[in-house]
Amino acid sequence: MSTIQLFQNNDAIPFIEQVKQQRPLVHCITNDVVQNFTANVLLAIGASPAMVVAKQEVEDFVTIASSLLINIGTIDEHSANSMLLAAAKAEQTQTPWVLDPVAVGAALKYRTEIAKQLITFRPSVIRGNASEILALSGQQSSSKGPDGLDSTDSALNAAILLAQKYQTIVAITGEIDYVTDGQQIYSIAGGDIALTRVTGTGCSLSAMVAAFIATTSNRLTATATACFMMKKAGELANKQSGLGTFAMAIIDQLSLFKQNYQ
Amino acid sequence: MSTIQLFQNNDAIPFIEQVKQQRPLVHCITNDVVQNFTANVLLAIGASPAMVVAKQEVEDFVTIASSLLINIGTIDEHSANSMLLAAAKAEQTQTPWVLDPVAVGAALKYRTEIAKQLITFRPSVIRGNASEILALSGQQSSSKGPDGLDSTDSALNAAILLAQKYQTIVAITGEIDYVTDGQQIYSIAGGDIALTRVTGTGCSLSAMVAAFIATTSNRLTATATACFMMKKAGELANKQSGLGTFAMAIIDQLSLFKQNYQ
Amino acid sequence: MSTIQLFQNNDAIPFIEQVKQQRPLVHCITNDVVQNFTANVLLAIGASPAMVVAKQEVEDFVTIASSLLINIGTIDEHSANSMLLAAAKAEQTQTPWVLDPVAVGAALKYRTEIAKQLITFRPSVIRGNASEILALSGQQSSSKGPDGLDSTDSALNAAILLAQKYQTIVAITGEIDYVTDGQQIYSIAGGDIALTRVTGTGCSLSAMVAAFIATTSNRLTATATACFMMKKAGELANKQSGLGTFAMAIIDQLSLFKQNYQ
Repeated sequence: MSTIQLFQNNDAIPFIEQVKQQRPLVHCITNDVVQNFTANVLLAIGASPAMVVAKQEVEDFVTIASSLLINIGTIDEHSANSMLLAAAKAEQTQTPWVLDPVAVGAALKYRTEIAKQLITFRPSVIRGNASEILALSGQQSSSKGPDGLDSTDSALNAAILLAQKYQTIVAITGEIDYVTDGQQIYSIAGGDIALTRVTGTGCSLSAMVAAFIATTSNRLTATATACFMMKKAGELANKQSGLGTFAMAIIDQLSLFKQNYQ
Repeated sequence: MSTIQLFQNNDAIPFIEQVKQQRPLVHCITNDVVQNFTANVLLAIGASPAMVVAKQEVEDFVTIASSLLINIGTIDEHSANSMLLAAAKAEQTQTPWVLDPVAVGAALKYRTEIAKQLITFRPSVIRGNASEILALSGQQSSSKGPDGLDSTDSALNAAILLAQKYQTIVAITGEIDYVTDGQQIYSIAGGDIALTRVTGTGCSLSAMVAAFIATTSNRLTATATACFMMKKAGELANKQSGLGTFAMAIIDQLSLFKQNYQ
Repeated sequence: MSTIQLFQNNDAIPFIEQVKQQRPLVHCITNDVVQNFTANVLLAIGASPAMVVAKQEVEDFVTIASSLLINIGTIDEHSANSMLLAAAKAEQTQTPWVLDPVAVGAALKYRTEIAKQLITFRPSVIRGNASEILALSGQQSSSKGPDGLDSTDSALNAAILLAQKYQTIVAITGEIDYVTDGQQIYSIAGGDIALTRVTGTGCSLSAMVAAFIATTSNRLTATATACFMMKKAGELANKQSGLGTFAMAIIDQLSLFKQNYQ
């Protein structure tokens, strides 16, 4: 296995600045639970979110968008159709795109099948928790629903193999995040357990990845930067006052993010 | 009529602890307005929310979920189909489930018809406001939309009859909440009028009921505990700063809930 | 061109009071990103929101609603169908209604076509940003997605012509808001740039317009009042702590709105 590099603050700075300056237009086809939080997270980091979902519109919009996010959390056959059209167009127009394979696994065959179809359109990045990445690589996972139970360490080999097989970047997030292109591996430590107690922190991280990869060809570091930024926001957000305040404070911290956070 | 028992703090403690320890997986098919708030409320009390809605997936997911919530607030024919499939499966697998019959009544015949079909699959609990419970029992209500205008006192007899007819538990919430299985009746006083000025407090209470009944066979007390917990959170949440702060503070209070609240 | 009148605080007072007293029932068919924020904004100003979307229900509900909002942000063919049914019924029952033509323009032909069909049902008010209003009047805009890039000044003539052509009121909002019926023009200055960094401030303003026009025949002033109220809330909301706090504080300020704000 390749050596794991600890992701450094200094690596993140230029990517964070570039998103603020370029304001990438991030086309989101995401789940119904996190639409608002995702839009506000993207605005907080300086990107411009656009939720366009109709099968009549997604292809045109992918063409003008800076990047695309596809999140299958509340997929049904209508949104699945739009996702497949959008992903195919993104491959064709070389629009960078992120797949968030929420809750794939043995329990939910329909979405797992759609996720596998989506992967054939070559996502730039796949971002999931350990259970989801294990499931996508055909290994056993203990997933039951969106909150996976596997550790990211246990899924690192699966992530590397998945990245190699599909020539993509895989980010597994959890207590420690790992980001790999199948060769290099970044680890990002820190964060806060409370991030798992607010809905949408993983889903909106995937949207952040879409924003970051829109502004650079160095997608590995850009993806790690998004993971780093969310972990730091979670560390800095006030959690003493309860989970409502904490959710709001994540957006606060992202919008006030300073380059010198360590 | 049976005697009305005032619900006591001490009755609530073990149920609140059990949800935190068992982290029930609550399958939610709910309305588009409250998905995020509902997920965050469930996380705040220690449960694990999962919004799975595709007709291809709901039956499989009911099978692995600890409990199911069906809320018809923004029903259309696609979600109605999924709701009926999920409810039928829940009856078959004896998965406890909660029906929140948002805005049923003479003005909205389509959802009222679907709600009546759903009831044939024997919900464990029906949670609604007075207008909704009156409408479901075939009595006249003054409902126009989700904010009912009837008092819970006026609907108590309807609730008892409904509980008896369908061998279910009925919770009517409002200025005073009543929870009955058709024999016993709990009343829960307190709360705050501001709870009616934040969207999703009733809907997410129904989701809390689903979480609480997942961990016990004493569903009457579990349902009353959920009502008690929301009323207390509403009392404790800061309302001086306005309704935005108040909405956030409800989640805060639920996540910090202490057993010794009176 | 007509003279532009600066909208005055005193003009707003009776309209704000009337909404609080009459609690208009606002039927919203709006986009998936802003459902929760819109409902909470309407509750904050004293209105009663109801999101009813099924094609089987929208016509019945328009009949009992005080007013209707149609926002095409995440339109697909199912919601488009419901929107067209609702708008046709609103014209027939003379229910005042607001069209928010999110992201219309050359890039998104499907929604632009639906928006033009909707306009034939004579909305009482059209509320959009400059790019959207330019696009609706058939002029060139620089819109790419929901965040328009044109100034409201550049769209004022288009707004006047649009208002005259369809005998409606047009509100263009941005750095300066303009509200016109094709004859009179109100301008509303102030606000805060941070309002563009929180999702749903424009969409929920359209919902506020629907609430305000429900209680009066003076729809021009009522529409300007809604714009004024949102700008003031944006000015008063705390932005030092970041964009999460700011979003919450907008709801706070709307719910605490005092008549003597200048």
